[in-house]
Formats: sequence, structure tokens, C-alpha cells
Amino acid sequence: MSVKREMLYEGKAKKVFLTDDESQVIVEYKDDATAFNGEKKGTIAGKGVLNNRITSIFFKMLEAKGIPTHYIETLSEREMLVKKVRIVPLEVVVRNIAAGSLAKRIGWEEGTILPKTVVELYYKNDELGDPLINHSHVDVLELATPEQVAELEQMAREINVYLKAFLADKNLLLVDFKLEFGIDTDGNLILADEISPDTCRFWDADTKEKLDKDRFRRDLGSVEEAYEEILRRLGGFAL
Amino acid sequence: MSVKREMLYEGKAKKVFLTDDESQVIVEYKDDATAFNGEKKGTIAGKGVLNNRITSIFFKMLEAKGIPTHYIETLSEREMLVKKVRIVPLEVVVRNIAAGSLAKRIGWEEGTILPKTVVELYYKNDELGDPLINHSHVDVLELATPEQVAELEQMAREINVYLKAFLADKNLLLVDFKLEFGIDTDGNLILADEISPDTCRFWDADTKEKLDKDRFRRDLGSVEEAYEEILRRLGGFAL
Repeated sequence: MSVKREMLYEGKAKKVFLTDDESQVIVEYKDDATAFNGEKKGTIAGKGVLNNRITSIFFKMLEAKGIPTHYIETLSEREMLVKKVRIVPLEVVVRNIAAGSLAKRIGWEEGTILPKTVVELYYKNDELGDPLINHSHVDVLELATPEQVAELEQMAREINVYLKAFLADKNLLLVDFKLEFGIDTDGNLILADEISPDTCRFWDADTKEKLDKDRFRRDLGSVEEAYEEILRRLGGFAL
Repeated sequence: MSVKREMLYEGKAKKVFLTDDESQVIVEYKDDATAFNGEKKGTIAGKGVLNNRITSIFFKMLEAKGIPTHYIETLSEREMLVKKVRIVPLEVVVRNIAAGSLAKRIGWEEGTILPKTVVELYYKNDELGDPLINHSHVDVLELATPEQVAELEQMAREINVYLKAFLADKNLLLVDFKLEFGIDTDGNLILADEISPDTCRFWDADTKEKLDKDRFRRDLGSVEEAYEEILRRLGGFAL
């Protein structure tokens, strides 16, 4: 039985609480939504519950494939017990289809299938607006060792293969997604954070309808319904 | 004797002309200056003559060190005979001290010495504003092969070592600089473009006075004088 102790950290979409076990923390998923580096703020009713369930499904699937994650178990509607990690301050973005900032950066129309997988690193730093960085920036900022960067980029590419296949089966396209990694109390590099419509672009494979946070970012409406549709297709229980 | 034929290309700071030899072109250095992706435009009197001389000095020095460049010979005040190349559409930036866009990107104060050399790739594309890209972007855009990227980054680091030492001897700090590479008619990857106060940040080692295009970008005045001072310290003839 995990006992929730004092709050360790509050992020934009989650709170993290200590437990009596030094190697474990409890993540509580919030309904708060932000976009454009916090410039746009709002609430998506039920999002915390949905993202907790959706992340649980993805993390269980990835663990079964041999990917080490921080996931231990789902405790309640909004709470997940996870391994305590020191987060590597990098957002690792994997892209299969041009969208968002990549479409702007390289000048390809949104929806263009990328002939090769793109992997990007962003410096997790709100004050700087999470800028794109390269390996030599990671090195000079000492955000991770070259070996850790190689390992997490390789894991990100493997995760992409598993997620794409899993989602294709549910008639969903995985356009792109953001991962965060952490170092657990044993020193292992493991997948952390969440995998949800907050951190991924999911499109219906036939209609290309957006079923992710872009509905919030771009004021497309039916935001909760999109998150619910993702949970439904993943075989999770509706609210 | 090289005969100047029709103009092949006009860039922001140079014109390129065909010659009777298919493997050679003539570069003519202009006085036009631009900054901020062409938003700021001006003229720096005598810049073309100065940059032609300055680039000649650097390219001769690098050739003597074994770096393959497009430089053949200086033909006149503004003209340089070079090998014809297909330019790799990458701006390769090497940085020793935080300044300009790097200072903003990673949040380090201008002037901070970088504990490790930073090498950045920018996509040479005016319409997109020459964005920073990483190796997977180069790959998906097919701008160069992974082998070419490794080779040109290695060459850029070697050039940095030679330039830094050469400039230290003239009491100048090499803050950062931009290189362009090309593939010559024999298929070799060689250094192309120019090395001048237009493409480098040079600071006086004692006073940290800027002796480069930042004087134009930031309206610091004495722009021509700074370019002349660089030529003088390199041992070139004054105008």
C-alpha cells in the first residue's frame, strides 16, 4: 500500500508526491492544459483521468515489449505509482509525419509523410521556451552524456516502432510524440513522464481527424471527446 | 588567364561568374551587407575588397595546413578564382564563446567561454530563415549523406583549431564562425564560400572590442574600420 506524502513538484499537467518508499513517487494527473510555452491556458474536463488511463495502457504495452519505464501501477482514477527518477532535462520528439514546428522548420506541408523518422531534442527549460538543441548543445550544457543521448534516442526509435504498430491496429496514425527519460535510483535510464493526447499527435487513419491536444491548441472544439475517443480505441473504459 | 563569362549566381555579398574552364568560377566580392535574414540592408564601403583579401589569407593558411578549399588564386581587388562546387545547403557554425543566437538559445551570457566547442548546422534556406536543424533533419531533407555530415563537421572542428591559433597570434579571439562546404567536379568535399568579418565574430583579445559584422548588425559604428583592422592584423595591405 503506497502512502501519499508531501508534494515534491507541481508541473503544468501533473503533480508528483513522495511516498514512504524512497524509490517510488505518486503522479497525479490534472485537468489543466497549457500550450505555446504556457501562453495559452485552459482546463479540459476529465483530462487527468483520461491521460492516467491512456498512459497506463501505453506503458504496460511498452513494458511487455521490453522497454524499461517508470510505471509501477495505476492507483486510482488520477493517480499512478511510478519509480522515482531524476528527469533528464530533454524533450525527445519522434516524428513520422510533418506537423507543428517541424512543418514550419523544414517547410513541408502538415501531413507529409517523412521518408525517414525524425528525432529531435529540445532543452526542457520553460524560461528559454524549450528550444531545439543538437548533440553539441547537450554536451556543453551537460544535460546528458553522449552515451545516454545515444541510448535514449535508440529507445525513442524503438518505442516509435511499437507505438506505431499498436496504434495502426486501432486505425490511428502516430504523427509525432514527445518522450521524457529519467535515471532511476539504481542508475538506469528509463522512460518516464506520460504518453497521452497531451504529448502525442494522433490522427484517425482514414479521416485524418485530429484526436489530440491540437484540438485545444488550435481551438478545434470537442477536446474531451477526442481524448475519450483515444481511450475507447485503446480498449480502455469510457468515463 | 581566366576569362570571366556570364554570371552564374548573385548572392547577398558575392557574385559568381563562369569561366572558360568548367571546373572553375570567379567570385566577386560586393560591398552589400545584410543581416537578420535580409531584414536589415546596407553597404559597407570597401567591404568587398577587404573580404577578398581577408578570405585569401585564411584560405592560403588553411590549404598550407592540409584543409582542402575551393581557393585557387586572387585575381584582382574584388575577384577570386575558385574551384566550381555544388554547395552543400548547410551553414556549419562553430562556436568557442557564447554570442548571438547561441547565447539566446541556451541562456548563457554573451562572452561566456564554452567548455566544449559547439558545432551547429543550419539549413541554408532564405525562405525559412536558415533554421537550426539536426542530423535527422539533414537526413530527411537529403541535404548531405551521414558520411558527408561527419566529414564536414570534423573538418569544421579542425579548421577551428587552426583559425583559433592563427588569430590568437594576432591578439584576436575567434568567438564563432560560419562555414560552407561544396562538392567539387571531382566529387571531393571541400571548404567553400568565404572566411571574413561577415562570417566570423572576431573580438580583440584584451578589450573584447567587436571587429566584425556585429558592428553593422547592432549599429555600433566604425564598421569599415573594424574590417580594415582585421586585415591589418592578418598582415594584409591596408586599402
